[in-house]
Amino acid sequence: MNNILVLGAGKSTTVLIDYLAKKCKEHNWKLSLADLSLETVQRRTKHHEDVVAKKLDVNNVQLRKELIKGSDVVVSMLPPAMHYHIAEDCLELGKHFFSASYTDKRLKEKAEEIQNKGLFFLNECGLDPGLDHMSAMKIIQREQEAGNHISLFKSFCGGLLSPKHAGENPWNYKFTWNPRNVVVAGKGVSTFIRNGYYKFIPYHMLFKRTESVDFPKLGSFEAYPNRDSLSYRSIYGLDSIPTILRGTLRNKGFCRAWNILVMLGLTDDSFELDLPEGFSCQMLTNAFLPYDPQMTPQQKIKQLIPDLDKENLEKLAWLGMFSTEKLPKRTGTPAEILLAILEQKWKMNPEDRDMVLMQHQFTVVGGGKSRSIYSDLTVMGDDQEYTAMAKTVGYPLGAAVYLFMKGQFKTRGILLPILKEIYAPILEEVAKFGIEFQERTLDA
Amino acid sequence: MNNILVLGAGKSTTVLIDYLAKKCKEHNWKLSLADLSLETVQRRTKHHEDVVAKKLDVNNVQLRKELIKGSDVVVSMLPPAMHYHIAEDCLELGKHFFSASYTDKRLKEKAEEIQNKGLFFLNECGLDPGLDHMSAMKIIQREQEAGNHISLFKSFCGGLLSPKHAGENPWNYKFTWNPRNVVVAGKGVSTFIRNGYYKFIPYHMLFKRTESVDFPKLGSFEAYPNRDSLSYRSIYGLDSIPTILRGTLRNKGFCRAWNILVMLGLTDDSFELDLPEGFSCQMLTNAFLPYDPQMTPQQKIKQLIPDLDKENLEKLAWLGMFSTEKLPKRTGTPAEILLAILEQKWKMNPEDRDMVLMQHQFTVVGGGKSRSIYSDLTVMGDDQEYTAMAKTVGYPLGAAVYLFMKGQFKTRGILLPILKEIYAPILEEVAKFGIEFQERTLDA
Repeated sequence: MNNILVLGAGKSTTVLIDYLAKKCKEHNWKLSLADLSLETVQRRTKHHEDVVAKKLDVNNVQLRKELIKGSDVVVSMLPPAMHYHIAEDCLELGKHFFSASYTDKRLKEKAEEIQNKGLFFLNECGLDPGLDHMSAMKIIQREQEAGNHISLFKSFCGGLLSPKHAGENPWNYKFTWNPRNVVVAGKGVSTFIRNGYYKFIPYHMLFKRTESVDFPKLGSFEAYPNRDSLSYRSIYGLDSIPTILRGTLRNKGFCRAWNILVMLGLTDDSFELDLPEGFSCQMLTNAFLPYDPQMTPQQKIKQLIPDLDKENLEKLAWLGMFSTEKLPKRTGTPAEILLAILEQKWKMNPEDRDMVLMQHQFTVVGGGKSRSIYSDLTVMGDDQEYTAMAKTVGYPLGAAVYLFMKGQFKTRGILLPILKEIYAPILEEVAKFGIEFQERTLDA
Repeated sequence: MNNILVLGAGKSTTVLIDYLAKKCKEHNWKLSLADLSLETVQRRTKHHEDVVAKKLDVNNVQLRKELIKGSDVVVSMLPPAMHYHIAEDCLELGKHFFSASYTDKRLKEKAEEIQNKGLFFLNECGLDPGLDHMSAMKIIQREQEAGNHISLFKSFCGGLLSPKHAGENPWNYKFTWNPRNVVVAGKGVSTFIRNGYYKFIPYHMLFKRTESVDFPKLGSFEAYPNRDSLSYRSIYGLDSIPTILRGTLRNKGFCRAWNILVMLGLTDDSFELDLPEGFSCQMLTNAFLPYDPQMTPQQKIKQLIPDLDKENLEKLAWLGMFSTEKLPKRTGTPAEILLAILEQKWKMNPEDRDMVLMQHQFTVVGGGKSRSIYSDLTVMGDDQEYTAMAKTVGYPLGAAVYLFMKGQFKTRGILLPILKEIYAPILEEVAKFGIEFQERTLDA
């Protein structure tokens, strides 16, 4: 077994490719990288002459299968919708499969077949999902094995600007990752449980229901609940835990201002606008506010949200939401049009650096006392290519592939990195590259 | 041509069947009625011995096509999702097609084929859509033919309790029509235009943005904007009209109280709950409110919506939202669970009567002056079978079929009742049964 195929050479793959190329050179394995754009592949592989560069349209099923047939291990870095098809090919052709994305429901139905064929299918092995699973399970299993009881688990993660570059705009925010995901984040209802009370938060309330999360040296951030925290009870073996919450981190003040855009309806992604020529940003904002030709949009927003701080309106003004300039995009959903506005404002400059933060909080009861355990991860981007995002996705996934190739994992089937056999060596490997959690314990 | 087939014998078909049975008897046409339940068919046809009763599972494509093959005209009273498949069969087998539902987008793509085959496909010929098109177009075309200019068009419709029976509960409301549609009404974004200003209202704001609509003798009602009013500009030939709005009517005070359920998230239909045994209505309400074991859900709602009237909380209490009784349903979306609660409370009693209201408002400019035209429809239900809903859906659709059978319509293709050739004789026919609009004109 010595052929690795990576499908997709997008921005987030820089670290993964460099890491795997180095490991392949050391072990005399063959690494192939395929993408729709040969130019992108060549840019990623320019320092690695041994990596085989391929041009591939993944929608061409025949060519795709031929490439997969010639490999032993396939890593999908394609857009999430493609993973299932690649995984299906791998199952058909008897190849091992790795991804950093959520496990497709349809794939779970094929668990037995994957197991029976002796294949190793590992999903959710990037940052979030990925490092969150691994670092949480390390503490959960350690405490449970010591006979202790976990009564609270909260987990927060966020992709942000590094503190050195965050103060430049009033939002302290720029797109360091998929911008579209940021604009539609939180749609639906977020669920969690607190002291035994189920909590369900609809989207239009989500960004008001934040909590504060402190990082040593970095200070306070705010977090909004992130989708379905309840399902993590069974995944993590915490079925009867009275408090579990997962949240997304933002710089202080972000959520209150973002909430205005949500309340107005500007993040709606369910209906298509077709606005007349010359429609301005201000006209768009005004269209989501009640009719009153005597009032400015700013005045109407104040009426709508009486406890609004002045600085929140300034944040909207800074985005250009009250500007009489033409919209950068006139057709599409409100979320798509808002995205076009935000992309002009929240674009990373070459000198900007990103940062990834993660924090787990546990309350652990054992030996007649209660302790709080905090586990923090802080990763800074080096430059525009070696971003914190690329590192925290690339190293865990790369390490998983590397360790698998070395024969470290004996389990087979469709897996998450929640097994000690898998997460322990991966966490050890990524620590060599600065992906290391800091643990603090406070007696309650 | 003398065979009419009606598919679906649900509650709303009583008037349609009676009307068509009578016309078929007079003209010696054959009427067949098919439904999944033969018992339902027999109940509908008990006074009409000439009507052929059939049992049909519409998902059985072969049997369905055989039935359609033996008819000349097919009327679909099935759930909306089925219309397209029936219409496709009709196109394939060369049969004419009638429905009271919105035209399926996929069907529009087959317009040329329908036209070329000389078929008559009429959709949106019930109440809303249906009578709204016909009665609005009658005035629009009359005024435009007279050289007048329409600068405002608002149209409101609602299915309510008759005033004699409305005062019995604090909501003045019961389900007189599809309960599920009431619970999820307004999802997405509602759009309209007012004095040239585009207005987009997201769902969580919709029930706050009501306007008052007066009916002579009946008094004031409230209306919330109903989905995409903008698309009616081209349908009705009002492309550059500065004000167009369609709205749904409710009794005064309904929307403010309903809005609390919307704000809490209880009408969400996007995620599945699986609540523990013994979960009460109060626990459900509380789950959508912030965590605070010292406060009751009522206190939390007051904090969330500071300008809340006491009577709105009483409306929620009357529904049982603060009751410690077990939920009638523990799994499903919040909307589905809320529906189960509401169905216990908003169920029509045998002595209750329903009412359908419609009002069009126009501002018409011509001859140097401006006039306001109001066109009102008020229809009361006779009993549980001859409801106002069954009348206002059944008579227009029945009249369309009858007039078509008599050879009154020359046009062919996929049609709406917005052509004078179609709406004028239908409105004349339904007026014989009390479906008659009252027009008032006020000089501005």
